[in-house]
Amino acid sequence: MEIALLQKNHVTPEFQNQIRALFQQLAPTKKQLQLLDIFNDKNNITLVYGIKDGEILGMASMCVYTVISGKKAWIEDVVVHENERGKGLGRKLMQKLLEVAKKKGVTELLLFSAEHRVAAKQLYEDLGFKMSASKLYKLQV
Amino acid sequence: MEIALLQKNHVTPEFQNQIRALFQQLAPTKKQLQLLDIFNDKNNITLVYGIKDGEILGMASMCVYTVISGKKAWIEDVVVHENERGKGLGRKLMQKLLEVAKKKGVTELLLFSAEHRVAAKQLYEDLGFKMSASKLYKLQV
Repeated sequence: MEIALLQKNHVTPEFQNQIRALFQQLAPTKKQLQLLDIFNDKNNITLVYGIKDGEILGMASMCVYTVISGKKAWIEDVVVHENERGKGLGRKLMQKLLEVAKKKGVTELLLFSAEHRVAAKQLYEDLGFKMSASKLYKLQV
Repeated sequence: MEIALLQKNHVTPEFQNQIRALFQQLAPTKKQLQLLDIFNDKNNITLVYGIKDGEILGMASMCVYTVISGKKAWIEDVVVHENERGKGLGRKLMQKLLEVAKKKGVTELLLFSAEHRVAAKQLYEDLGFKMSASKLYKLQV
């Protein structure tokens, strides 16, 4: 398994198709943006993926921004292929993002997870994440 | 009361001092970054503030990023001066951020708030935010 950081030139039509199918395992009905949409100048994103014999088996994204309260990174869209779960790929992807975050000078990593994602929550806790009592609010516009 | 979007040339030493004091009302002991730290090329931030007779009475920040699951904006560091609370400034600041978010093509606004911030939570719900059942996880690095 190779763990790689996405670069624009990795994005072929076949690569995009595999990413689309993988993301659908996380959120079957959610509208997806194209990979090329994430490569804009103002987007401080890192997307890490695991690939073996040409097949993308997992991915995770991280976006960094700076506000008065700190330099923060949000982990987003973490998904491991259903055939690959329980073998440590999620941990490898997260560790790679943590490494990049430290290089970027991030002081706080954040993510949110649904209650029913037991394996994911266990992984986040193993990596040192603490559940916060704060409540998350969303507005679709 | 003037509602303004922060530009780099607004940041004088006096302005920075007022922002620092205002932020301390939200988080008295938290280490703060300097305003000039938020003006880097990769930081897609909007900071809106309310000012009257040279005094900054409230502020709110918003950072935008794009991932596969959408173009998202996080609201951060919302604070209204203790002498100005309950007079509608928080709503004006949030409405300005919503307006900017729509112009930027954001499809999802997010924020989190502590349980005890009753007025803030009421405002977010009035503006259409829904509390999510997802749990927030944090890691300090």
